[in-house]
Parts: sequence; structure tokens; C-alpha cells
Amino acid sequence: MSTAVNVNGVITSGEHAVIPVFDHGFLYGEGVYEVFRTYRGVPFLLDRHMTRLRASANRIHLEVPFADTEIAQRSLATMAAAGLAGGDAYVRILLTRGVGELTYDPAACPTPSLVIIAKPIPLTPDAFYTKGVKVVMVQGLIRNHPESVSPLIKSNNLLNNALGMQQAIKAGAVEAVFHNYRGEIAECAQSNLFIVSKGVLKTPPLDAGLLAGITRAFVLECAAGIGVPSQEVPLKDQELFGADEAFLTSSTKDLVPIVTVDDTRIGSGAPGPTTMRLLDEYRRRAATLTKST
Amino acid sequence: MSTAVNVNGVITSGEHAVIPVFDHGFLYGEGVYEVFRTYRGVPFLLDRHMTRLRASANRIHLEVPFADTEIAQRSLATMAAAGLAGGDAYVRILLTRGVGELTYDPAACPTPSLVIIAKPIPLTPDAFYTKGVKVVMVQGLIRNHPESVSPLIKSNNLLNNALGMQQAIKAGAVEAVFHNYRGEIAECAQSNLFIVSKGVLKTPPLDAGLLAGITRAFVLECAAGIGVPSQEVPLKDQELFGADEAFLTSSTKDLVPIVTVDDTRIGSGAPGPTTMRLLDEYRRRAATLTKST
Repeated sequence: MSTAVNVNGVITSGEHAVIPVFDHGFLYGEGVYEVFRTYRGVPFLLDRHMTRLRASANRIHLEVPFADTEIAQRSLATMAAAGLAGGDAYVRILLTRGVGELTYDPAACPTPSLVIIAKPIPLTPDAFYTKGVKVVMVQGLIRNHPESVSPLIKSNNLLNNALGMQQAIKAGAVEAVFHNYRGEIAECAQSNLFIVSKGVLKTPPLDAGLLAGITRAFVLECAAGIGVPSQEVPLKDQELFGADEAFLTSSTKDLVPIVTVDDTRIGSGAPGPTTMRLLDEYRRRAATLTKST
Repeated sequence: MSTAVNVNGVITSGEHAVIPVFDHGFLYGEGVYEVFRTYRGVPFLLDRHMTRLRASANRIHLEVPFADTEIAQRSLATMAAAGLAGGDAYVRILLTRGVGELTYDPAACPTPSLVIIAKPIPLTPDAFYTKGVKVVMVQGLIRNHPESVSPLIKSNNLLNNALGMQQAIKAGAVEAVFHNYRGEIAECAQSNLFIVSKGVLKTPPLDAGLLAGITRAFVLECAAGIGVPSQEVPLKDQELFGADEAFLTSSTKDLVPIVTVDDTRIGSGAPGPTTMRLLDEYRRRAATLTKST
């Protein structure tokens, strides 16, 4: 198993994969992306990722000249080249404005670039799920304003996320929690955030300025399925710090309990019972949805 | 004359220049840049561009393992390869986090990538200076919040600028004027903005959320030199629409009179006298500073 990269239909190893300097994805970060995972070779919620890729592209006025089936087929071919045909893969799909002169005029770039990276899914330590993790509150940075590259766009303009994660890494934490411009909690650098308070599951609404996480939506469905009441409501710091439970969600890490925020213990300091019920339900549904036929 | 690109010391033609897919400049837009021009082969205000490149890099916690002289030397070599040794060149310097695994941990990328693009400076039509240009007010988008990839960082996260310019291009305008999150005028997608009102030159202050334009600062120096009073003050729409004169500044276009905003004529509808005096002074100083010895 290794890393394979598909650049506009041509597959190479990760080390040899290149794109033109004049790709506007490189020059301007002008592109959108998705990350999905596979279980035993079967893509998980791929249709939802394709829908969101098109929604992101639409928000930057980028046409997607590929059918979903074409993107899926290229993803599978790239996974196969990486030796991951029946394995657990991480697949990143990047769609950029394409190659063209140094101008923001879309007419300069007639053909978008489609890059697909396939590699083994990074192992999340077992302890993340059994003991929980620490996150930090980001200082001096806020999540993008909704009118300034909306967080709803899953774009390659990820510098803000990178700067937030640098703070987390420095503090030995696994995630960085961003506020929005109103001072409410928005989301983490690479995941959405949930709390459980008095038996109710709560997560910030999309208009708090956050990515419409596919795992976020899936967890809300899991909650409904097992009778856990949920609300999409603005969250302030005191609600996170005073929560009974908290967790983060992402397409590559599923659902990870949060037990510490900065230096404050959340709830009992161990993964909470509602979090673990949701994780069980998540895994049960994921296994069913990716059962080989 | 053509386009030449220097990628980490290796020069190729523009069409053949590539960078690794795993460069974080491509994956995340994690990088900073500068654009300077030459007059007859002599770089203009290169020292100021080098200072700003380091300031931008510092704000994203990116070390610059190159001396200014090294970057200047590579720029000159790239210009020479483009056949522009004694010509008027456009030079873009991109410094990215470098190549590394898919993580925001800077430790994954030990070596920044230095890419330099040299090409003939795009010709600005004479009519821009003699008749002035149209700009549009950007709708539905605002300039980055200062705490969310500050506009002071000249970064490769340029999607917002691209989206603004798309509006200008659609309207047949040459620039797009962004407001900040407070509703004040900030700057254009690719340039700073000035007005002249009752003989006073005015431009928004840096804390309005804008790039510390090198041409912007140079024009303020020109103004002081010829006795035009100037102020860095917040500007509202009505001050732009009611101005006697307006112009934009950029390192590649110098100083361009604005005569129309959306469908409104500014001042007399022709380049104003103070604007033209400043342009003359700008050109006089630029010629002196780039005189070959």
C-alpha cells in the first residue's frame, strides 16, 4: 500500500505527482475539494460528497465537466493503483480552476484540473475513542466571515485552518475550535463540534459559519435513529465548557470524544454515554452501508 | 521574450514549470507572494517587496531560508531566461510551506518552495491613464476579516479576490471595490483605492483591513513631495461616489484614474488634476530610482 495520485486521468506515485505552476489552484488557491473514506474498498457516503463538491464549485462559479460516475471511477482506479482496492482508503478529490494566464478572468482557464489522491487512511489511535482527546480554543483568529469565502465552500483556501491547527499542535491538542465573527463557536479546523447537555445533542447551525459536514449530518441522523433529541443552535463558550459531553466529527475520524478544552475538563473527563451510543450507531450504520454485495 | 519559471533554483519555460501535488501551496494555499516590476531591467522598490514578503511569511509562521540577495539573484536569472534582462518585466515570487504529508503540522514540510515567475509586464492600455477606468462595488462579498487570514498577509489564499474580480469582469470594469466587515471601503481585488476630495488625498487606513500596498505608500510619499495633503481615514460609499477624483494603485499598473463606479460618474468624468500630478511625480521618481548606473 502506498500513495497514488491521479492528475487529469494520469496516475503516478505520490512522489512523482506534479501539477503546472500555472494551475490557478496553485497560484490562487482557486479550487474546491472533498475527502471521503472507504471501508474495505467501499466508498462511504460518496454520493453526498459528490453533491457537496458540486455545491462548492457552484459557489465559486466553477463548472464541473465530469459526471459523478467519472469522478468515482477515477477514484477507484487511483485506489487500485495505491494497492487499496479492498482496503480502507483516504481519498482526496481536488477540482481547480485549471491552467491559465495570471488573471482572475475564468475565461483564461477553459479546463478545470481534477486531482485525486488515494492513500491508506491515517490510523486514528484507539485511545482517541476510548479516552477522548484535548482541543484548544483558537486565539486571535476567527473562522472566515460567511461573506468572505464562506465556510460553506470546501475550498483550497485553507490557510486560516492551517494557522488554527498550528495552535492546537503547539498545545498538544488534536483540534482547534474557531469562533465566528459574532463570538459564537463555529467549528474546528478540520471537523465539526457537538456537545451533549442534559441529554440533548447540540451543534452550531450552518449560519454560524461552518462547513455543512457530511459526518455532522450523518450523526444527526444517527441521533434521530436512537432517540437522542438534537438541536442546531448557536453555542457560546460557557456551553462548551459546561457541557456534560462533547465530541468532534470528521469524514476521516468519524466521531471523537472531547474530554479537555484548553486546560478544562469536560463533563466527567471521560467519553460520555451519549457520545458512545452515537459512535456505536455510527459504526453500525457505516458497516451496513458499506457491506460488500 | 517569453515566460520563464524558477522552481527551487531550476528554470524552465512557463509551459513546462511544475510543482509537486504535495506542495502545501497547492493543497492548502499555504504560501505568500510578492509581485514587483522592472523598468529597463532594473527592479523597482525590490527592497520593500522583500521586507513585505518576510512580514507575510512571519504572519503565517513560515521561515524564509533565503537571503534577500539570493531571491533577487534568482529573480534576475529568471528574467534573463525569459529574455527580459534589460526589459520591463513582471516578476512574481511565491514562497510556500513546501512539500509534505497531508497535515497542517509545519514539521511535515521542512523545506519551503520558492517559485519565481518572470514574464513581460502586461501592457496597460494608454487609455487607462488618459481617460480613466470603471470599477464596480463588490456585491455579497466582503474583504477578509482582519482576524481571518488578515488582508495584511499577501497570501496565496486569493479565492475571495478572484470572486470579486469575476464581478468586475462581468460588468466590463477593471477593478472590484471590497467593503470590510464594518461596511467601510477597504481596497480593490488587486489594488488599493484613493480619492481626492476638496484638494485632500484620502485612502483607508491599514486597520480597515487591507494590504499595505507598496505603491500605496509610495504615492503617499509622492503626495508629500509635491505638497498634496493626505489622510489615511475610513471611507464610506458616499465619499467615493461624491469624490472629486479617485484612482487605484498597484505595483503593475502604477496609478490608474477611476472615472466611473458602477454606473456613477466620479467628479468630472475625466482623470482629475491632482491624480495626474501624482502620476507625473510617481513616474519621475520611478525613473530616477531605476536609472541604470
